[in-house]
Amino acid sequence: MSQSAPALTAGSAGTVQTRYLDLPEPVRLDCGRELHPVRVAYETYGSLSPGRDNVILVCHALSGDAHAAGRSETPPGESTRDGFGAEARDGAGGRGLGWWDGMIGPGKAFDTDRFFVVCTNLLGGCRGTTGPSSIDPATGEPYGPDFPVITVSDMVRTQRAFLDVLGIERLAAVAGGSLGGMQALEWAVLFPDRVDAIVVIASTHALHPQGVAWNAIARDSIMRDAAWQGGRYYGTGRAPDAGMGVARMVGHVTYLSAPALEGKFGRRLQFADDLRYTITEPEFEVESYLRHQADSFVKRFDANTYLYTSRALTYFDLARQYGGGSLTRALRGVAARTLLIAFSSDWLYPPSASQEIEQALRALGKPVELQVIDAPYGHDCFLLEEARQTPIIRRFLAQPV
Amino acid sequence: MSQSAPALTAGSAGTVQTRYLDLPEPVRLDCGRELHPVRVAYETYGSLSPGRDNVILVCHALSGDAHAAGRSETPPGESTRDGFGAEARDGAGGRGLGWWDGMIGPGKAFDTDRFFVVCTNLLGGCRGTTGPSSIDPATGEPYGPDFPVITVSDMVRTQRAFLDVLGIERLAAVAGGSLGGMQALEWAVLFPDRVDAIVVIASTHALHPQGVAWNAIARDSIMRDAAWQGGRYYGTGRAPDAGMGVARMVGHVTYLSAPALEGKFGRRLQFADDLRYTITEPEFEVESYLRHQADSFVKRFDANTYLYTSRALTYFDLARQYGGGSLTRALRGVAARTLLIAFSSDWLYPPSASQEIEQALRALGKPVELQVIDAPYGHDCFLLEEARQTPIIRRFLAQPV
Repeated sequence: MSQSAPALTAGSAGTVQTRYLDLPEPVRLDCGRELHPVRVAYETYGSLSPGRDNVILVCHALSGDAHAAGRSETPPGESTRDGFGAEARDGAGGRGLGWWDGMIGPGKAFDTDRFFVVCTNLLGGCRGTTGPSSIDPATGEPYGPDFPVITVSDMVRTQRAFLDVLGIERLAAVAGGSLGGMQALEWAVLFPDRVDAIVVIASTHALHPQGVAWNAIARDSIMRDAAWQGGRYYGTGRAPDAGMGVARMVGHVTYLSAPALEGKFGRRLQFADDLRYTITEPEFEVESYLRHQADSFVKRFDANTYLYTSRALTYFDLARQYGGGSLTRALRGVAARTLLIAFSSDWLYPPSASQEIEQALRALGKPVELQVIDAPYGHDCFLLEEARQTPIIRRFLAQPV
Repeated sequence: MSQSAPALTAGSAGTVQTRYLDLPEPVRLDCGRELHPVRVAYETYGSLSPGRDNVILVCHALSGDAHAAGRSETPPGESTRDGFGAEARDGAGGRGLGWWDGMIGPGKAFDTDRFFVVCTNLLGGCRGTTGPSSIDPATGEPYGPDFPVITVSDMVRTQRAFLDVLGIERLAAVAGGSLGGMQALEWAVLFPDRVDAIVVIASTHALHPQGVAWNAIARDSIMRDAAWQGGRYYGTGRAPDAGMGVARMVGHVTYLSAPALEGKFGRRLQFADDLRYTITEPEFEVESYLRHQADSFVKRFDANTYLYTSRALTYFDLARQYGGGSLTRALRGVAARTLLIAFSSDWLYPPSASQEIEQALRALGKPVELQVIDAPYGHDCFLLEEARQTPIIRRFLAQPV
């Protein structure tokens, strides 16, 4: 994983390559600390225009990475399209294909014939960008629990510092789903003079308390695993795989809808003839499925990154952070055109949150469009409903500034 | 915990006492095994009529026990009213009061001026009835994972054997919420000539796949805890408290509704002034609350009982078990009048399941009444909405047979 010079062209021969860039300055964090050095893993798709005015920053969600589109040059084991829900993994793709490959490319929602699309692994990540598994220069050991607690603002400030190095001053759009949508919103609030448009999908201005609860349970599951060792498990030969697996299973169920589980599995037994009367083995197909998801996730994701990223997304609260409790006040400086997309069956990031953002922007006289797509797959829709999102996003991005 | 002779009177001086009865015969189980000896813990409220025709059997849910009403004579640490959701614990009662005290007593829904109410700890329990923590006569050690896998039918057969010893041949009603409602349904199907009426509250004929998933996650969380030791943790000085705590937190969130969490906690911070930037400590009130629930639950409940009981309630499926896939066929022998109560905000045992039971019984020309109560507290409503359930149940029980 050596550092390349900033590269603004796509990989050769139809494949893409994750690149790495070290930021020249420390990143100042909300918690008051500074982080240095900070390396950013990124990928790009399409070509930068001579005026550098065709850049779309795509932001990933909790368990994603910089590999948003195309087929990766990295070994299959290190790259995935299963960043979020099971459905995404079961669908098109297979290993090596980016997590939003259906949305990024020539003629797609984020059209690389027109736009230069950039995706970075977020701050705190475990897929190339500096995070808890990176070496702390103060000790020569991985940060572990000494990694500073980060926020969505910190992620966005890191992205801006990264784009500054690339000489990209202005973004045609910032887009993302879930935690990625939070980053897009944060961009519009924090750097209003840098963003022309934001595309906020299946996201929120502040996660509701039930979502906070699910995240707390997932984190507690990791931290209660004795193998977590207070976060200092690197190099010990043990990792909190058991707790991470449970965290992933909880996440999984929240990403899907009850009707989607009903349609996909029903109450079908693993062995169709009858019950086997077992506590330890799966009896229902949905039980096997969840265990499989847990097992494959722990192989590719770092538990501490999960903790830090989950914490950041529960902290995110535009009204508290920028509006003294008022979302409208928080959004008053927004200059970007805003497209909000929500999904009817998404109960983790329900349409009501997008409606609150729409109403606040509308009250401020800002240009905003909300599309609620009627689809059954829950939060995972933002990864699955590519065909229905595409015309909405293409039309939005085609509008004159 | 010595055995008393069958006692059919209430405790003295306004308190109740849990009693114990050893069944004379082995209990035959669905898995093919027999269990012997079987001890049943039980409580009674009110007086048995000379004709022994005023008996109501009340069945408890996943984490309940025989102490359904009144103030217990047992030490405070061993008796609780917090069998299910946090709300119940935070509400009326306090330690020592039965989990359905608001529903059982003179003039209450299950009126002890008229009825003799009996509640037993279910088979597999950890509060006096034989379960995985009981001594296996074959080894002289606690059963642990050698305890047979049990079903709701097994629970009900055990209750019948217990009532036979008490000389109670016929039940005026069987009533319960959640898993307790499953037992009431099972009674009506398995022993139609023994039950005049059933009261099935916040329950289902078969848990939906999302509910199966939550239960699988809870069980996996316990079994992945290294302290579980394959189920043989008794006497080792270690128990899977960490995993049980996570299981309880998952359960807790599913028992409440998202609006209930919103109303109770919102996004209020634990320290109101600002974030403390911590991964390990709670930042939001809802996070502290969940940890508190987890910690108090593990002190009073056995992890193996949780596993076995959770497995039994996921197995329960009247259509599969008795109808070759058809719920209507499964219910064709039911003779009891049926009252179904569901709650609008209950997403774990949603009203749709009760509607399916109602439709099947109606198609068969059986007497059935369904009441969907519009209330915001989710599945926990069956413990909380006493005032609104009471007139419905009293009216139903007052009807002539």
